[in-house]
Amino acid sequence: MAQNIYDDDEFFANYAQLPRSIDGPDAAAEWPLLRAMLPPLGGARVVDLGCGYGWFCRFAAEAGAASVLGLDVSEKMLARAGTDTNDDRITYRRADLDDFTLPERSFDLAYSSLTLHYLADIASFFGVVRRALVDGGRFVCSLEHPLFTAPSSAAFVEHDGRTIWPLDDYSVEGPRVTNWLADGVIKQHRTVGTYLTALTATGFRLTDFVEWSPTPANLDAHPDWGVEIHRPAFLLMAAQAG
Amino acid sequence: MAQNIYDDDEFFANYAQLPRSIDGPDAAAEWPLLRAMLPPLGGARVVDLGCGYGWFCRFAAEAGAASVLGLDVSEKMLARAGTDTNDDRITYRRADLDDFTLPERSFDLAYSSLTLHYLADIASFFGVVRRALVDGGRFVCSLEHPLFTAPSSAAFVEHDGRTIWPLDDYSVEGPRVTNWLADGVIKQHRTVGTYLTALTATGFRLTDFVEWSPTPANLDAHPDWGVEIHRPAFLLMAAQAG
Repeated sequence: MAQNIYDDDEFFANYAQLPRSIDGPDAAAEWPLLRAMLPPLGGARVVDLGCGYGWFCRFAAEAGAASVLGLDVSEKMLARAGTDTNDDRITYRRADLDDFTLPERSFDLAYSSLTLHYLADIASFFGVVRRALVDGGRFVCSLEHPLFTAPSSAAFVEHDGRTIWPLDDYSVEGPRVTNWLADGVIKQHRTVGTYLTALTATGFRLTDFVEWSPTPANLDAHPDWGVEIHRPAFLLMAAQAG
Repeated sequence: MAQNIYDDDEFFANYAQLPRSIDGPDAAAEWPLLRAMLPPLGGARVVDLGCGYGWFCRFAAEAGAASVLGLDVSEKMLARAGTDTNDDRITYRRADLDDFTLPERSFDLAYSSLTLHYLADIASFFGVVRRALVDGGRFVCSLEHPLFTAPSSAAFVEHDGRTIWPLDDYSVEGPRVTNWLADGVIKQHRTVGTYLTALTATGFRLTDFVEWSPTPANLDAHPDWGVEIHRPAFLLMAAQAG
């Protein structure tokens, strides 16, 4: 199963201090791009894979979704989501997304934010998602970009007077251990090619592929994001089933 | 128009010394992967965009293609292609692929090897290719991977005891001047996202996306290719029209 780092006390406490945890999606730089990929939500049956605090589930319900199922491996996240939610169209359930099932042909939209890079078996995951969607249904997701997960030492460095991203091991897939929010956080590095091959082989048609980079407005508000032009931190994709 | 560096005397002479120029596709590490993406060629109407010496045109004709049109901007390349070819199913024509036309719905396969990264307007190019293909037709291409074209200084370096690819400016699209085979060679850097967005927006369905990395057999034959695992040099894509 995927590591359940979100139930680690230190990680959970530190995660709660992130801007996006305090202020919600408006503090998430990639959210406007991801939102633009969403189909109309009115009447839609939605599943959120890695729902965390449940804010997307509430967003979808407020936008008119008929039903929203939020899945997460973390009991702490689900407890917080339950506390923050008062809408009987929304259901939360615990699931390990490396070993889970969904009812077939039952959803119009599958959504997943910053979760895929924790999963060990992406082809199996895409298969469950594809079968859970109706034909023509949509899958919209964000993940840490493979350029972000690849390096053996994932931090900008100065070299020859330039700020660079020290890329290595891009083609070497597998776990990467980082100390983000807590020690020993395990992410799964895969190439862009592996993600796209798994997606298309499962019967999805890619419709959107966006590598996040700061906009001029982002840079006005966050001058320290200037280095983000050197390598994208987030990858956003959308695909149609069938 | 695209820079016509292949008609530069120094570049043309140095290009002729590359292993792939002397030994053909068998010396091109990415060729087996690209070949695996090809549809059946028997009876197919084929256009090769950036045909160079014309070896793919001859490969396609030998594999049974009904007709093969090879386009290239370089007069020297086309002269060599003409000299090497004796097959009346093959036609060569000079064209600037940044400003060209093709007859509509006239080809079953459009092929392009290591050419796209020289073109300034990729959306326009994909549009011409899409319209030239029949519905269900295929586009199969290779290009220098955006990770290869991005950096302001595109060579492996040693940093902190590790060999790294000094990635910067990935999100900064536009020309890159290199001194590969001759001084002042201009390549056009675009992100993976830009290539895929242009491809899908033009009405293509992505079917294959492979980032070349050396195989164990490659490494046995070329131990110096070990560094290639750090960043892919080639990107290979295939897509279906409609």
